[in-house]
This record gives sequence, structure tokens and C-alpha cells, in this order.
Amino acid sequence: MAEGEEVENKQVILKHYVRGSPKESDMEIRTGKTKLKLPEGSSGAIVVKNLYLSCDPYMRNRMSKVEGSYVESFTPGSPIVGYGVAEVLDSSHQNYKKGDLVWGMTTWEEYSVITSTEGLFKIQHTDVPLSYYTGILGMPGMTAYVGFFEVCSPKKGERVFISAASGAVGQLVGQIAKLFGCYVVGSAGSKEKVSTLRSSLHQFLLIPGGVDLLKNKFGFDEAFNYKEEADLNVALKRYFPDGIDIYFENVGGKMLDAVLLNMTPYGRIAACGMISQYNLEQPEGVQNLFCLVTKQIRMEGFLVFDYYHLYPKFLEMILPQIKEGKITYVEDIAEGLENAPSALIGLFSGRNIGKQLVAVTRG
Amino acid sequence: MAEGEEVENKQVILKHYVRGSPKESDMEIRTGKTKLKLPEGSSGAIVVKNLYLSCDPYMRNRMSKVEGSYVESFTPGSPIVGYGVAEVLDSSHQNYKKGDLVWGMTTWEEYSVITSTEGLFKIQHTDVPLSYYTGILGMPGMTAYVGFFEVCSPKKGERVFISAASGAVGQLVGQIAKLFGCYVVGSAGSKEKVSTLRSSLHQFLLIPGGVDLLKNKFGFDEAFNYKEEADLNVALKRYFPDGIDIYFENVGGKMLDAVLLNMTPYGRIAACGMISQYNLEQPEGVQNLFCLVTKQIRMEGFLVFDYYHLYPKFLEMILPQIKEGKITYVEDIAEGLENAPSALIGLFSGRNIGKQLVAVTRG
Repeated sequence: MAEGEEVENKQVILKHYVRGSPKESDMEIRTGKTKLKLPEGSSGAIVVKNLYLSCDPYMRNRMSKVEGSYVESFTPGSPIVGYGVAEVLDSSHQNYKKGDLVWGMTTWEEYSVITSTEGLFKIQHTDVPLSYYTGILGMPGMTAYVGFFEVCSPKKGERVFISAASGAVGQLVGQIAKLFGCYVVGSAGSKEKVSTLRSSLHQFLLIPGGVDLLKNKFGFDEAFNYKEEADLNVALKRYFPDGIDIYFENVGGKMLDAVLLNMTPYGRIAACGMISQYNLEQPEGVQNLFCLVTKQIRMEGFLVFDYYHLYPKFLEMILPQIKEGKITYVEDIAEGLENAPSALIGLFSGRNIGKQLVAVTRG
Repeated sequence: MAEGEEVENKQVILKHYVRGSPKESDMEIRTGKTKLKLPEGSSGAIVVKNLYLSCDPYMRNRMSKVEGSYVESFTPGSPIVGYGVAEVLDSSHQNYKKGDLVWGMTTWEEYSVITSTEGLFKIQHTDVPLSYYTGILGMPGMTAYVGFFEVCSPKKGERVFISAASGAVGQLVGQIAKLFGCYVVGSAGSKEKVSTLRSSLHQFLLIPGGVDLLKNKFGFDEAFNYKEEADLNVALKRYFPDGIDIYFENVGGKMLDAVLLNMTPYGRIAACGMISQYNLEQPEGVQNLFCLVTKQIRMEGFLVFDYYHLYPKFLEMILPQIKEGKITYVEDIAEGLENAPSALIGLFSGRNIGKQLVAVTRG
């Protein structure tokens, strides 16, 4: 390709701010043009080819007009921004050269010019699926790791409950909690669904979805489908007759209320997300907070951004576990940018099984 | 009084379990008989004359039929149990002798036989009002101290908000936070009311109630009457334009919801009580818990019982402050056991200004 030559660049555009449940029609695919070479005299920027894009729950907030939040709104009329895995095509930054692989903040399009490389990590280990850097080896993996070890202060033998447990974060929390020596129960939204998913090391497998996945593939002690339970309090009492010591909170609302009733004294709740609430104009009220007092519970919110200095330590722990097959990771991969909008909105109805991502291009 | 002679013993009886708001008629005064000498051969018990009885919010829970709570229900038909200050009249316990003063768990009656002395503290310092051992020098004082220093992890200059700030715990939290170097704002239920209250060192003073008390007597930087605010969020923004770093939570419900919107990143909430919720059949729902995640807030419930080993350290800190007039303490004293039921239920409508207690007998 000649220097300066323009190529087509497909993009996923947010058409307007979203209220309530996002729809595919809130986004559109647009094809623009871009150059794959930086202009002469550039400094600090890189051009990348995006390989995988990550669909993450926190992106829901960025689709709305938000003020004073920990994230900024997307810009209507512009492409969506998010985590991804990319290959460097051209570089004017001393730390990057053509052919390098990176993960971090990029744009939902085929090719991106990244001028601020502070949010990027260079990928050093390529003997695992590259897509894992949107999940287990990226932001969600770090979230699971620091949420469990840094926020929950776990002890061996403790009883751990994880909501949204087949998601990008939950599946890993459960597995590291099991390896650590805890009793682990997860809830998920689907029991019956059977999907074709790509599992570790690029194998394509036919995997039973949701609850079966938690028990049979991730080795959770128990799992249940919250949609099949008339009374979440009763369900939790069934799996935790002696109470929950640690709750890894991904959903909020009614589940949190039921969990509060079942926590043990001195229990810990790591508040990672509350995905059941993101599309509601008015969040559900949580009524059982007085349990925090009577049971001396610590409930703590956290954001992974504070903990990226632990990333090398995390990789050192997790890579051998993946290679030895002690930790597995399930991905739900949408093929092509055209399918990115539906993949993203599927997160909020619980359609995905495992980490939802988009393969921009194969090969 | 001859050994073995019986005397009249007035008692405050809980007539039945309470649902909703407690009423005076849920209790009754009954006069029984008791002996002021222990039987020969007694071991480990003491007989006390009760001097002051403490009205505390947690007692509301004990008036209901509760199961699996951190407190036990009172027994309908029997006298109420609670913190108090008492004088030892007879002792078969090696650690106590006639004339000793104690504070701790006793019964709402003139004279009590205490067979389990584990919950008692011997009073060593009598150059402060004895009634203080139901408040600033007793359980509420320790609650304020450990809640602020052990749970809130305060730093000088931080912005502290306290609800129910003229109550037994709140007034002390505010004063120790001020002495520690924080900006302190409190909310209370009453601005106009003027009460005759006994202040420190047995002076009787005419003190303006509620909000004025917080600013003028306790030295809070600001104070407001939550009943006069149409929008608590707006009120908090007025006093905390840069947000709240520490919230000492005594009330729950709508106030907690408004506080969550105004917390700063890495804020801490010490959940001490939620008095606004105790009489509700169905607690109010708290909707803004997602703020815990986005602002990385730690919300932690605590009970003072875990921290009594710090009591000597607390006394060492607080006694000089009281004697030097750097910390003051306002009490709302009901005279005589006959007035104990109305004093107790007044807590839940916010009728008291300062620590509510009952003087069983004078002199």
C-alpha cells in the first residue's frame, strides 16, 4: 500500500444519546476513509488495525448524556470508544513499532489513529488467544483479580456468591475463588441456552449456556438461574444455609436486597457493577441496608483503573493457570463490525454467555 | 434497712411486641417487691440501685419480635433492659463492693439484681456528671469515637456530614471531628424548639434546640433542619459544594440517597444506625447505590460491642477534653421512671434534643 493512500474505514457510530434500554438502531455503521500512514513529522501517535473490540457493561453509561461521572459520554455522530486489541501499522512513538500488538482504549472502527497512548498496554505474551486481552487478560480480568483479592479480603474456606457469574468478570472471579479455596456459587440468567462459543486456545466447542457452564466448565460448587427463582432470598438460603461471607456484586437491585439478608457478620461486598439498573430511568430501591449495621458488613465500590500497577503481578499469576488449563475462559464472539451494535446491546438483556466481544476482522 | 427486708420496686414493663411506631401505651409502670440484700451463699451477683437509664435507638428493635438479629427481643410482660448507671448496694462478686458505681446493662426498675456482670464497667472517674456514663462516657460515646476514628479513617481537612447530629452519638462525632481538624456539617430535626436541658457539669441552662445547638454550642461549621428542606440533595450541595468525604450515617432512607449523590471519590460512610427506618413496616428503598461503584465509596456498618477494648484509650482522650470544656454534651433528662416510656418513644419522633435519658431518682 502506497504511503498516504486512503483506505475505507468502517465505523460504528452512536447516533444520539440513549435513554432507557439501548437498541441497535441507536447505532449505525458508516464507512469513511483513513490513511494507514502517519503524516511526516508526527510525534507520539500510532496507527492501528483493530482486531477485537470489547463489549463492556460500563459502556452503557457512556451512551447517555452524563455529567460529573467517572466516564465521559460518547459523542453522538462519532464512533464509539472502548477497549480493544489492535496491531500497530505505523508509529511515531518511541515505545511502539510496526507489528506490535497492543490492548487498551481504541475506537470502534477498522483502523484508528491513537494520539494518546497512555491507556495502552503492549502485549508481550502471544501464546494465548489475542482476544483474551479484551477479557481475562485485560480490563475484566484485572477487575476480577483486584475486586476479589484487594476488595473482598478473602480467607480460605469462605463462602462466595457471584452474580452475573457467566459474564466477563464473574466467570473469572469464581475460578480464582475456587483455586483460592473458597466455596463458590454463581447466578446467571440462562440455563437452557446452548451456544457455539470459542473457548480457550482457539478451540470451537459446543457449550451449554449459563448455569451449566458455571458448574461444569468453571467448576463452581453450585449455580442457579435467577430468572427461575420466585424468591431470591429462598434461593440464596438453599445454597448458603450458613450465610454468604463474600458477595461479588455485578447486578444490584433485587439481588442485592436478597443478598443483604443472607450475609454473615463481617461479610464483605465488592461493588463492581449493577448492570440490572443501567437501563432504568429510576433505579430500584434497596431496602435491606440496615443489615450493613447489624451484621457489620463492609460494602465497597471499586474501579479497576486504580489498580493497573498490579497488572504485571496479575499476569504472572494468571498466565500459567491458563496455559495449564486450570482456568478457562468463555467468549461470545460476534463476527464483524456490522454485528457490533447487536453484541453490545445483548449485554444488557443477558443474551451473551461469557465475555462478549467483536472480531473486527479475521486473519 | 434490715437484711432481707423487702422494698417496693417500680418497673417499666413492655406489655407486648410492637409493630410500627411504639406508643407510651405499649409500656406500663408496675410496682413489685425486691430485697436489697443477696441471699446467703450467693456468688457472682450484685444488687444495684439504678440511678440513670439510657434511651437508645437500638432498643426499638428489641421491642419487636426479632429472630436472628444482633440483639434479642425484650420479653413481653417483663421489664425493659438497657444501659444505665447504678450504685452497688450489695455484692457477692469479688470485683464489686457496696458503694461502687457501675455502668452497663441493667433493667428499667428502681433496684436490680445483676447476675451477669460481664456487661458492666466500674466507674473510676466521678468528677464528671454520673449521667454521662449513659452517653458521652458510655456506649454512645464509644460509638462516636470508634465510628469516626476506626471506621471513617478521617484525614485532617476532610468534609464530614453527620445526620441526627444533635443526638447522643452525633453531637460527639461532630465535636471530635472538629477537634481533629475537619469541616463539619450536621442535620437535625428541629430548629426553633427551646428546651431546658442540663448541660455539662450539672448546670441547668436554657438552650436553643436542634440546629442552633449544633452551631452555637457544639461548634459545627454549619447545620440544617432536614424537615425544612424540600430537596435534601440541594441542601447538601449548599453546604458541600465540593462534596462529602465522610458521612456518619444515623438515619438511612432518603438522607442516605441524597448523601450518595454528594459523596466525593473514595468517600467513606460509617453506617451507625438508620433511625428513620426503624418504625417502618417496609423500609424505604435507597436508589443511588451505584454511586458506590462510580465513586469507589466504602460503606461500612459497625457495632460498638466489637471495640470495648478501646474504652480505656477513649477515656484517656475524652476526659480531659470534657474537663477543659473543649467538648460539651447536652442531655435531655426525663425525671422519674414514670416518664421513661414517653422519653423512649420520643427518640423515634426526634422529640429529644441531645442524649435522652431517664433519672430514676435524684439524690
